[in-house]
Amino acid sequence: MSSAPPRGPPLSRVAVTGGTHGNELSGVCLVKHWLRDPSGLQRRTFAATPVLANPEAAERCVRYINQDLNRSFTAAVLTSEAPPDGPYEVRRAQAIDQLLGPKGSARAFDFIFDLHNTTSNMAACLIASSEENVFAMHVCGYLQKHSRVPCRVYLHGGDIFVSSVSKNGLGLEVGPQPHGVLRADITSQMRSLLAHGLDFIDLFNQGTSFPAFDIVAYKTAGSVDFPRAPGGELLGFVHPKLQDKDFLPLKPGDPIFQLFSGEEIFYEGDATVYPIFINEAAYYEKGTAFIKMEKHTFSIPALEAPGPS
Amino acid sequence: MSSAPPRGPPLSRVAVTGGTHGNELSGVCLVKHWLRDPSGLQRRTFAATPVLANPEAAERCVRYINQDLNRSFTAAVLTSEAPPDGPYEVRRAQAIDQLLGPKGSARAFDFIFDLHNTTSNMAACLIASSEENVFAMHVCGYLQKHSRVPCRVYLHGGDIFVSSVSKNGLGLEVGPQPHGVLRADITSQMRSLLAHGLDFIDLFNQGTSFPAFDIVAYKTAGSVDFPRAPGGELLGFVHPKLQDKDFLPLKPGDPIFQLFSGEEIFYEGDATVYPIFINEAAYYEKGTAFIKMEKHTFSIPALEAPGPS
Repeated sequence: MSSAPPRGPPLSRVAVTGGTHGNELSGVCLVKHWLRDPSGLQRRTFAATPVLANPEAAERCVRYINQDLNRSFTAAVLTSEAPPDGPYEVRRAQAIDQLLGPKGSARAFDFIFDLHNTTSNMAACLIASSEENVFAMHVCGYLQKHSRVPCRVYLHGGDIFVSSVSKNGLGLEVGPQPHGVLRADITSQMRSLLAHGLDFIDLFNQGTSFPAFDIVAYKTAGSVDFPRAPGGELLGFVHPKLQDKDFLPLKPGDPIFQLFSGEEIFYEGDATVYPIFINEAAYYEKGTAFIKMEKHTFSIPALEAPGPS
Repeated sequence: MSSAPPRGPPLSRVAVTGGTHGNELSGVCLVKHWLRDPSGLQRRTFAATPVLANPEAAERCVRYINQDLNRSFTAAVLTSEAPPDGPYEVRRAQAIDQLLGPKGSARAFDFIFDLHNTTSNMAACLIASSEENVFAMHVCGYLQKHSRVPCRVYLHGGDIFVSSVSKNGLGLEVGPQPHGVLRADITSQMRSLLAHGLDFIDLFNQGTSFPAFDIVAYKTAGSVDFPRAPGGELLGFVHPKLQDKDFLPLKPGDPIFQLFSGEEIFYEGDATVYPIFINEAAYYEKGTAFIKMEKHTFSIPALEAPGPS
């Protein structure tokens, strides 16, 4: 995902990917709806393309078939042999790269909104690559201004997500919602966020400039695993005082886990962090009870109205 | 599951099954804990036996491998050939029948507490076979009196659950908790319920009689599926006014679904019902958005202290 220059061309090729994880139903079902009725993705200057990213995982209502699609957009995967009996997500990553990329090329789509749900109490989390991505940061600022829900920005610094295939992109992570469940409130929030994101691009395309602004955003400072027995079995769970407290400060000495024995485990770091993805179902297998974040404030330069395309 | 007579023998063989559905983590993790440290299952007159009912499903964190174990305790399944490459849950059902049954025999365990979670907002739901099961109804009454959480009784009328293997039993269904997630609050509620259930049996075994009482309980009046396209795809979701309203009255004309188009669907029954399992993840594949219940009040006779065993 490359930074858009402060004065770029209008964005005509926009995609909305859902079902990158097949059991995150808001994105799965919204994309299926837009495939039947695309009117919600149409704006004056463009019409976004809905893409069901992992149809087989969506069909089975699982996160993935063979490997996490949203960690599969590496050069190694995209250039590998992909025989029909090979890992399903390798074939899907290559198909998406053909459809919306190729990654890093001039032919790639201008922007991808990638839709996700989490079991964590994260409200709306906007997942961008870096504060240096001026265009995406302006989308975030616009969503924060117009969203009905708390809307925080996570800068992942990575380059292996679905949204890395296009020239620019943003992940929309909305929760809490159990995987395999479609909740009205969460799905409505995701729909509203996406609508405002499309509105922003439409305003930009029509010649709107956006002034410089300051924004709070969070960057990863490592992850913390559950207390486990040597064989990997859970010896406890997220402490009730930490559960659902995503993005709130966690100070050294605060309780983070409770063992089945009743014993409490306290945070031993030397600085305040801001945990996210607290008790996310999909991260148990990754050895992650929560991800520690550092809080930053960034000054984002103005975004000039686009030049000629 | 047969009704215990008002004056029965003491109960010495009690089992606690968890992980009957492998992604319902409160039961999975509590049973694993009790297998390491069974002290929480010991009482003066007995020690309950912890059983991980579906270890392979728990290992993979899925509801089941080949078929729903908690619908597998039929005569057909229990007496069928079960080759090593046959359905895993058939073998598990037969193994549990050997361990805790055989179902319907004098050798069967006296009582099974079977631990479940739901994504629905059902708080603690006690699942018994029938109001004629006087012993189980007294367990329910005792739990309602001592539980910290709303604690309602669902009379399923079925005979194919894990708990049907023993002479008597009760399902403890606690939510809301996403499948694949272990929440402190939900797990603590389940642990407390089970502890009170064991206490009740211990009091009974020690010679306590329990007086007659009235109890409110719910019986099934059918299920309602999501609005779907001819191919089965969801056209909408549980209405925000119904979501999380388990066990509350649903009147004719109340909204039950919202379509992606914005259209609302209203309940067309001719009487008030009490929906449960609203938006339960595991029931999408069963074609069930919620189960309609009728509310009854039953007079339960006194339970005499046990006779000689």
